[in-house]
Amino acid sequence: MKNAVGREIPDNIEGIGKVKPYEGAFKNIGAIEKTKVKVSSKLPNEDKVLSSIRESIIKCGLKDGQTISFHHHLRNGDHVLNMVLKEIDELGIKDITVAASSIFPVHQPLVEYIKKGVVTGIYANYISGPVAEAISLGLLKKPVVMQSHGGRARAIEEGDLHIDVAFIAAPTCDTYGNINGVDGRAACGSLGYAIPDAMYADKVVAITDNLVDYPACPIEISQEYVDYVVKVDSIGDPNGIVSGTTKITKDPVGLKIAKMAAQVIKASGLLKDGFSFQTGAGGTSLAVAAYLRDMMKKENIKGSFASGGVTGYIVEMFEEGLFDSIFDVQCFDLKAIESYRNDKRHQGMSASMYGNPHNKGCVVNNLDVMILGATEIDTDFNVNVTTGSNGIIMGGSGGHNDTAAGSKLSIVVTQLTKGRLPIVVDKVTTVTTPGETIDVLVTERGIAVNPNRKDLIEKLKGTNLPIVTIDELKKTAEELTGVPEKVEFDDKIVGVVEYRDGTIIDVLKKVK
Amino acid sequence: MKNAVGREIPDNIEGIGKVKPYEGAFKNIGAIEKTKVKVSSKLPNEDKVLSSIRESIIKCGLKDGQTISFHHHLRNGDHVLNMVLKEIDELGIKDITVAASSIFPVHQPLVEYIKKGVVTGIYANYISGPVAEAISLGLLKKPVVMQSHGGRARAIEEGDLHIDVAFIAAPTCDTYGNINGVDGRAACGSLGYAIPDAMYADKVVAITDNLVDYPACPIEISQEYVDYVVKVDSIGDPNGIVSGTTKITKDPVGLKIAKMAAQVIKASGLLKDGFSFQTGAGGTSLAVAAYLRDMMKKENIKGSFASGGVTGYIVEMFEEGLFDSIFDVQCFDLKAIESYRNDKRHQGMSASMYGNPHNKGCVVNNLDVMILGATEIDTDFNVNVTTGSNGIIMGGSGGHNDTAAGSKLSIVVTQLTKGRLPIVVDKVTTVTTPGETIDVLVTERGIAVNPNRKDLIEKLKGTNLPIVTIDELKKTAEELTGVPEKVEFDDKIVGVVEYRDGTIIDVLKKVK
Repeated sequence: MKNAVGREIPDNIEGIGKVKPYEGAFKNIGAIEKTKVKVSSKLPNEDKVLSSIRESIIKCGLKDGQTISFHHHLRNGDHVLNMVLKEIDELGIKDITVAASSIFPVHQPLVEYIKKGVVTGIYANYISGPVAEAISLGLLKKPVVMQSHGGRARAIEEGDLHIDVAFIAAPTCDTYGNINGVDGRAACGSLGYAIPDAMYADKVVAITDNLVDYPACPIEISQEYVDYVVKVDSIGDPNGIVSGTTKITKDPVGLKIAKMAAQVIKASGLLKDGFSFQTGAGGTSLAVAAYLRDMMKKENIKGSFASGGVTGYIVEMFEEGLFDSIFDVQCFDLKAIESYRNDKRHQGMSASMYGNPHNKGCVVNNLDVMILGATEIDTDFNVNVTTGSNGIIMGGSGGHNDTAAGSKLSIVVTQLTKGRLPIVVDKVTTVTTPGETIDVLVTERGIAVNPNRKDLIEKLKGTNLPIVTIDELKKTAEELTGVPEKVEFDDKIVGVVEYRDGTIIDVLKKVK
Repeated sequence: MKNAVGREIPDNIEGIGKVKPYEGAFKNIGAIEKTKVKVSSKLPNEDKVLSSIRESIIKCGLKDGQTISFHHHLRNGDHVLNMVLKEIDELGIKDITVAASSIFPVHQPLVEYIKKGVVTGIYANYISGPVAEAISLGLLKKPVVMQSHGGRARAIEEGDLHIDVAFIAAPTCDTYGNINGVDGRAACGSLGYAIPDAMYADKVVAITDNLVDYPACPIEISQEYVDYVVKVDSIGDPNGIVSGTTKITKDPVGLKIAKMAAQVIKASGLLKDGFSFQTGAGGTSLAVAAYLRDMMKKENIKGSFASGGVTGYIVEMFEEGLFDSIFDVQCFDLKAIESYRNDKRHQGMSASMYGNPHNKGCVVNNLDVMILGATEIDTDFNVNVTTGSNGIIMGGSGGHNDTAAGSKLSIVVTQLTKGRLPIVVDKVTTVTTPGETIDVLVTERGIAVNPNRKDLIEKLKGTNLPIVTIDELKKTAEELTGVPEKVEFDDKIVGVVEYRDGTIIDVLKKVK
C-alpha cells in the first residue's frame, strides 16, 4: 500500500512482520499504553559490582536471539559497544539485535559480527560509517529499523522495542549503580538517550571507568534501574566523545543562508520574550544562532529555553541571558558539559521528555523554532537525512522528525546544490521527515514556504526576502546541476524508516 | 491462617478480597513486574492549564468507585486534599478511594465525606487525628489499607494500588506541568512521595499556587507525567507544612536513652568512614544524632550519607562534613528545604528509590544504622507504631518497616513506660514492623538485643552497657505500671496493615 507520503510500503516485511504505514504526522496521538517492566528485585546488601563484562553477560542470562541496547553519548569515542560484542562473540551467542541510539565509524567491528551472524538485527536513530555501508549493501540478516530519538523512547516505553539487556556507558557510577555523565575521564554530560533503556530493559548493566563510592552525585540514572556494575579501564576516548562540528560556518554561502533564516524567524513574529529555539551542531545551523544572538541583544529579547543536543555556542547565549534555561539530552562539546555540570538552569532531559510523541507532552512541543539540515528535500517538503546521494545510509533522523513535528516553525537550511547534485528534488530517495512538518526551506537562491503555512507566506510578503516556490527552487537547482541519474536499488528491503509514532514512513533498499 | 508473626489473618477480607499473609521480611524479593501505564498523549500546543479543580476532575473523567491520590509533603498545612474532595462531593461523585501517602488532623473534613459515602476506601502510610479515629470506630465502608512509604511505591508500581487520578500539590509548577517543591510560598522541599503517583496514575493533575513560566527549574516531576495544571490561591499553610518536632529532647531520660543508643552504634563497629545513618524527627531520635555528631567529630569520621525525612539537624551535620551527602524524600523544616534547594549533594529520591523492596535496590538497603521509635514493642521485637494504647489508629509505618528491613542495624529508642503504660509488652496490639528486622531496643532501664543478632551480642559484651533480655525489660516495665488491661475490640475488621512487600502483617479491628 502507499502511505501518507506516497511511499509504497509492503503489508509485511520479512524480519519485521506486519507493518503500520505512516498516516500523517499527528494521526497516532491519544490513548496509548506504556508496557510492563520485568524487575529482579534485590535483597539488602546484595552486591552489584561484577568483575568483568563477560560475567555481566552471563549473569544477565543473555541468549541467542535477544536484544541488547547502547546509548551514543560517547559518539565516535565509544568503546563499550565493541567491548560488549567482543565478549558476546567469544561466548558463542548468536542472532543478537543491537538497539543502539546511534552507530558511528568507531563501531566498525560490528560489521564482522554482522557477517558472522552474531548480530542479525539493528535498531538505531543514526548510523554513519562502515556499519551503514554494510547494511545498505545487504549484509545484515534482518532489515535495520531506523528510528528518531523520540520514536526510540516511544518504542521502548510501549514495548515495540523490547530490550533484554541494556549496557550503559557510565562516565561515573557508584557501587550500587547510580550513574552520571558529568564526571570522569569520559565525561559526556547529559545521559538523556540512555534513560528509557535503563527504565525498561529487563536487565541493566552499567559499564564504567570511574567507579566511585556510594552515592554518586549528581545522579542521572538511579540505582533503582541498575542490576550490575562493571569497572573497565576505559569506556571511551575523550577525543572522539566531543564532536568536532560545533563551529559556525565561515563559508559565505552558508552565512547568507543563515542570515536569511534568521530574518524569516524575525518575520514570523516568534522572536520575542519567551522565545524557544533549537538548532543542530552543523556550521550553517549554528550561524543561524549567531544572527539570532545579535538580533536578540539588539532588541533586548529574553528567550525562554534552548534545547537539544547542546553546543558551547548555545551555552554562550544562555550565559549572556538570551535564554533563561537549557534542556539538554546530549552535550556536543566540553563547554556544554561544563555548563550542564555547574548550572542548574541547564537541565537534563530524557529522550522521552525530549521527543516522545506518546507521553503527556514532550519538550519539542514547546519549541518555537527548529533549524534543520537536509541531504535532500523534495517538492512536497519531505526531507531525507537518512541516505546519501549514492543511496547508502549516512545518517538518520536523530531528533529531525521529532523537532520538525513539535516546533511552531521548522526551517530547513541548506545550499541548493552540493557536490554537483541538486538538494531540492522531485522525490527524495528516503523520507526521514514528512513535508507536512517542514515549514520553510532556506537556500542561497531563495526561500520556499510550505503552502500549508498561509499565515507565514502572508507575513513574509512584507519583507525583502526572496520568496519563491519550492518547484522554482528545484528548477533552479536542476539548471545548475542537471537532473542526476537515479540511484539504482535492488528490490531487497534492507531497512525501514520508522516515523516517531511507530508507523513506517519509508523503506530502505539494497544498493546495487 | 496465622502469618509469620503469629497473627490470625482471614483468607478473605470483605472490601479487600483475597489476602496474602506475611511470610517473612525477605521472602517476596526477586522477580516482579511493574505494571502497564495508560497515557493520554498530547498534540503539540495542547494547553494543560485549566481554570479550576472542578474542571480538572471533569476532564479527567473521574467516576464513582475510582481511586484518587495525594502526597503529604504539605503535612498538617495541606489544603489540596480537602479542596479536591469538596469539589468531588459537589459533583455528586461517590464511593471514592483516597490513596494519600499520609493523612493529618487538617484533613478532618474527610470524616464527613466518609459518613456521606463520598469516600469509602482509604490507603495511607500514616494517619493521625479525626480521620484515624473515624476509621477505628468503623465509619469507613471498606477496610483502610495501611502501607509503608516503600510499600506504597511498590503497590503503585506493581498495579496493586491503581490510581485513576493523582492530584499533586505543587509548590511550583510551570504551564506545561513541570513541578518542584523548592520554590513558592508553600515550598516543602523534596516531592519524593508524589513521584510514583505521577508516573503510574492514569491522569495527573498538578495543583499549584505558584504557576510559573515554562520551564520551571529545577524539575522534580516532569511534564511527561502531568495531564493538567490548575492554579489556586493557596495549596497550603506554611505554618502547618513545617513540622514542629525537629528539636532535640531536653528530657534527661530521653538523653540517657540516646546516649546509650549512640554507644551501641559505636560498639557495633559501623561508626567509621563511610557510615550511613537515618533517624526520625522525634526528640530522642535526634538526640542520638547529637551524640553521634560528637563522636564523629572527635574521631574524625566522615560518613557517606544521611537519608530519610530530613531535618535541619541532619543538614548541620552534613554541612560540617560529617556526611558526604543526603538522600531526601521529604524535608521536615525550613533548613532542610533550603539545603535541598541549594546544595547539589543534598539529593532528592522518590519513595520507590527510598524504600521499595521490589526495585533493583533502594536506598534503605545501604543504610548502616536506623533509629526508630515505638508505641509498643513485644518480646518478639515486633513494633507497633500504628495504634495507640486505646487501640485507635494514631500513626502508621511511614518508613518504619522499610528502614528496619534495609539497615544493617535498626535500633528502637523508647522509654520503658509512657503515661503509666508499659511500652514493652507480651504482644503488640498491632504489628507494624516485624521483630526479625529490629536489632536492638534501647530503654532507660536497659538494652535488649534481638537474639538473632549473636554477632552484636558478642560485640556488646565488651562494653559497660546494661544489656538485658527483652523479657526482663517487659518484667521491669510491668513492675512499674502493672499489666494493663487489654483494649477491647469488636470483631469487625476496619483495616489491614500491609507489609512493604504487599503481604498482610496484621489486621485492625473496630474499637468497642
